[in-house]
Amino acid sequence: MYVIKASGAKELFRGDKLAATLKRVGLAKAKIEEVVNKVKLSLSRKPTSHEVIERALNYLQKTDVAAAARYNLKRAIMQLGPTGFPFEQYIARLLTAYGYDVVTNVQANGFCVHHELDLVAKKDGRHIMIECKFHNSPGLRSDVKTALYTWARFLDIKKAWEQEHGHTKEFHEAWLVTNTKCTADAIQYARCVGLHILSWRHPEENSLEKLIDQKKLYPITVLLSGNQMLFSKLIRAGFVLVADLAKVNLNELSRRTGLGGKRLYGIHQEAQALIKDSSPST
Amino acid sequence: MYVIKASGAKELFRGDKLAATLKRVGLAKAKIEEVVNKVKLSLSRKPTSHEVIERALNYLQKTDVAAAARYNLKRAIMQLGPTGFPFEQYIARLLTAYGYDVVTNVQANGFCVHHELDLVAKKDGRHIMIECKFHNSPGLRSDVKTALYTWARFLDIKKAWEQEHGHTKEFHEAWLVTNTKCTADAIQYARCVGLHILSWRHPEENSLEKLIDQKKLYPITVLLSGNQMLFSKLIRAGFVLVADLAKVNLNELSRRTGLGGKRLYGIHQEAQALIKDSSPST
Repeated sequence: MYVIKASGAKELFRGDKLAATLKRVGLAKAKIEEVVNKVKLSLSRKPTSHEVIERALNYLQKTDVAAAARYNLKRAIMQLGPTGFPFEQYIARLLTAYGYDVVTNVQANGFCVHHELDLVAKKDGRHIMIECKFHNSPGLRSDVKTALYTWARFLDIKKAWEQEHGHTKEFHEAWLVTNTKCTADAIQYARCVGLHILSWRHPEENSLEKLIDQKKLYPITVLLSGNQMLFSKLIRAGFVLVADLAKVNLNELSRRTGLGGKRLYGIHQEAQALIKDSSPST
Repeated sequence: MYVIKASGAKELFRGDKLAATLKRVGLAKAKIEEVVNKVKLSLSRKPTSHEVIERALNYLQKTDVAAAARYNLKRAIMQLGPTGFPFEQYIARLLTAYGYDVVTNVQANGFCVHHELDLVAKKDGRHIMIECKFHNSPGLRSDVKTALYTWARFLDIKKAWEQEHGHTKEFHEAWLVTNTKCTADAIQYARCVGLHILSWRHPEENSLEKLIDQKKLYPITVLLSGNQMLFSKLIRAGFVLVADLAKVNLNELSRRTGLGGKRLYGIHQEAQALIKDSSPST
């Protein structure tokens, strides 16, 4: 059976690939084969890859809500874009949960020009300048050019504070944070110069999705009972993370958003189930 | 009278702005006011900026073919894109005319990663690595990030050859060449680190459009009697520059392109008139 990809190209449906993904998102071993078979049987005659994802999410949702959230996470971060919530603000929330002091939109003097830094984070006396790179398509990778300009920016700022007495504005590290993967060249360059990359599946043990998962810092866009309009309204009312949504009661949620009804109840229930049931996959 | 811009925004029609542009492209002083008035009178009730350009080109074409070519040059370079002719190949032709030895698509070792360089140029014993940045919209400027990554690439390559004995692969200069303007930050950064920028209207005395004009190296897309299909066919047959087109006779042109008729005659005539009449504006 062939699956039609977003690009229009055809690809054989591969149960082993879906099984590997389900394993990675932490679905219990005994359930993996069952879900793969159910997905396969439920597909239409000319399925799209979008349909495969929808079906898998559907079964995961009934089987393991935490695995469903992890399966949906990459897409969910991309869906933050259309709600108007900036990716760097989400990363700021994430780093704060890991004990960093984070400031957004910082002006910094370079030797040659002024720079606008997406984030500045501090922890244990170390100061970090962070460049955030958001892509709105899963196929786009951050390439070596992004790593090169982030590093050149760091060098320009470094040259400025090295000429100051006292070095009060020193940055000890430069990070590039992105919601998709990076090219092999970008990773190699970053490792070589000492730039830290935090991205999808990299670095293996502390990749973006693992940092999110370990603290259950899922964005609300991971919830299957929402849609873009609902997400936008919730985010405008201050609910960006599933945990924020789960910890208020339904009355307060209704009061703060001006919303009500079955839809709000559904997403609130789903948020609570996810925060309660999800067991960190570490 | 208002003019509707490509973005949909409205802007007052400004005769003084059009006059300044006509002066810059070298139209004789006595003619400027006449052309501005003719353009103004010929506009429809709800003119677009595209219409203003078309009308001005129309009158310029009858008044001063070289000024018309210069007026149309920025758009013509952008129109090379859809023909499939790469911008870096056009820049290679330009630099060759100025006595540089130019090689395209060069692999270079960096200290951290391999780099693919758009162009490498040599002249008077100096070796230059060149990054070409093509934009397909006049509103897009090359920003400081482009200057930063070009410079970081240069540093990485520099670090590699500094560790070699003999320094045989040394680059003495790094250039960024782009078909639109650069931001003020990009120019400031480049000046500070020693990166050479060649772009629209910068540097003032040797900007891209002046280098093109001084040697009459107009791309054929500057010719008003062509359209995209004709341009593509001519370029596939090896005619990229107006000068290439002007120096063959019509029979040979017809033989080499497999084209004929009024259209081919018209563009050939226009090419010859431009090469004959245009007086470098230096």
